Amino acid sequence: MIRTSFFNIQTRGDTDVVDITPHVVEALKRSKLEEGLATVFISGSTAGITTIEFEPGLVKDVRTLFEKIAPKESRYCHEEAWHDGNGHSHLRSALLKTSLAVPFLDRQLLLGKWQQIVLIDFDNRPRNRRLVTQFVGE
Amino acid sequence: MIRTSFFNIQTRGDTDVVDITPHVVEALKRSKLEEGLATVFISGSTAGITTIEFEPGLVKDVRTLFEKIAPKESRYCHEEAWHDGNGHSHLRSALLKTSLAVPFLDRQLLLGKWQQIVLIDFDNRPRNRRLVTQFVGE
Amino acid sequence: MIRTSFFNIQTRGDTDVVDITPHVVEALKRSKLEEGLATVFISGSTAGITTIEFEPGLVKDVRTLFEKIAPKESRYCHEEAWHDGNGHSHLRSALLKTSLAVPFLDRQLLLGKWQQIVLIDFDNRPRNRRLVTQFVGE
Repeated sequence: MIRTSFFNIQTRGDTDVVDITPHVVEALKRSKLEEGLATVFISGSTAGITTIEFEPGLVKDVRTLFEKIAPKESRYCHEEAWHDGNGHSHLRSALLKTSLAVPFLDRQLLLGKWQQIVLIDFDNRPRNRRLVTQFVGE
Repeated sequence: MIRTSFFNIQTRGDTDVVDITPHVVEALKRSKLEEGLATVFISGSTAGITTIEFEPGLVKDVRTLFEKIAPKESRYCHEEAWHDGNGHSHLRSALLKTSLAVPFLDRQLLLGKWQQIVLIDFDNRPRNRRLVTQFVGE
Repeated sequence: MIRTSFFNIQTRGDTDVVDITPHVVEALKRSKLEEGLATVFISGSTAGITTIEFEPGLVKDVRTLFEKIAPKESRYCHEEAWHDGNGHSHLRSALLKTSLAVPFLDRQLLLGKWQQIVLIDFDNRPRNRRLVTQFVGE
């Protein structure tokens, strides 16, 4: 069985790291499924989804890491297309990707105790983001 | 229900970025499935799959990013195994990975308007690549 | 049908790269499924899963790559939370992610001939790791 649903997140942009685990857990509960695969996906090309231990120090470190990988102030050819200053946002998103898969069993996501699902909004302005959760299971 | 199919792409190698969205859309249409998870996968260890806004500037930026992460001209220990000069290709592929999952609903991939699925061929020569699309759905 | 199972791997930590393909192949065989999607997942936030051509030179190159991306000896804000010296491990894991999806057909994973599934344990000490394999298929 397939269960697809959506939820919205308001971000501050600028590599804002947001813990979205409660939204996924809630959607899984509503699905009534016991065992299967949870996919979290965001439409768009300036955000990414991964897992981290969600604590303030690591959130800072993640932001520093992506600033190192694709600095905000570098020159990007993408700028010629739109002139909206978010070439770095696109690159960070392309590298991290916009989907994440997590198995679940006995109605529980198989995450570690200190492992949260995070949306990282790499865009250079606040965004209202719509995310997809999709459960394939039984 | 599971639907697995294949398609071929001729690349120029050397971090060639190819928009493969039409192939995935076509395979989804043929599957007759309405809701589920699409997985795009490439066998091999010198390519990767992700999403980007497919426009010429960003394609250049993506190529620059991977050249920075794993430069073509660095020395790689992998060279000792095969002497084929593509150590950087393997590293870029290991980091980006060879699979991507995108949910679909109402027979449509839930991609953003400016979000395309791309194959990036990191190998150092043109390749004829066979890709897998697999749909799990109903 | 969904088949979820677990296996354990003893690692040496410190970006140890371990070929786990035989474990996934064995679990797939036990599942009796013919066609579908295999997901390999590790709970926790200091490891990652990807594919590489598993040979000693490339294993060294992968370790060098991650040392460049998030050096062990840099200062990380995460250190303030736990003082356990593994900020770099968390960042490497966040970037590579803890799950991987590989389609299978005719009871075979659709991996390339020189493509193995690897667990990379980024933590700074040996760990006994429990991994999940989950097959969605028929």
